[in-house]
Amino acid sequence: MEITLKKAVLDPQGVAVENSLKALGFDRVRQVRVGKYIELSLEAPDRDEAALQVEEMSRRLLSNPVIEDYSYTLQEAGV
Amino acid sequence: MEITLKKAVLDPQGVAVENSLKALGFDRVRQVRVGKYIELSLEAPDRDEAALQVEEMSRRLLSNPVIEDYSYTLQEAGV
Repeated sequence: MEITLKKAVLDPQGVAVENSLKALGFDRVRQVRVGKYIELSLEAPDRDEAALQVEEMSRRLLSNPVIEDYSYTLQEAGV
Repeated sequence: MEITLKKAVLDPQGVAVENSLKALGFDRVRQVRVGKYIELSLEAPDRDEAALQVEEMSRRLLSNPVIEDYSYTLQEAGV
């Protein structure tokens, strides 16, 4: 899953990365935003249940819903 | 782009998140890995040139090639 700051929230880490990239000569870079990327394995009876669990984890621990958005993709592992 | 620790590298942040999730009752969670997610806009004449630039940025600044892997997707913005 990807956890990113909401668009309206200032991202100082993104600004710092953007400035560093420009200092290295990448002068066509804009709007750098830095977020978190989390990979995990989860046992669940089906896809819907897995989605529910991931959403609950995101809300309860992994993201701060006041300032962050999250998105995720599910991928079935071999049984 | 997503920047993740190589599989062979210990990820203490992932372990901490996994333990916290378990403490919250998500006891079927395994193999949590925490990485960085970076979004940016880039002007480039074509897709190949954009890919080249993103790879160079990843190698030179955004990832540590000794311990991290990176992957990315390109998406064309409206002109």
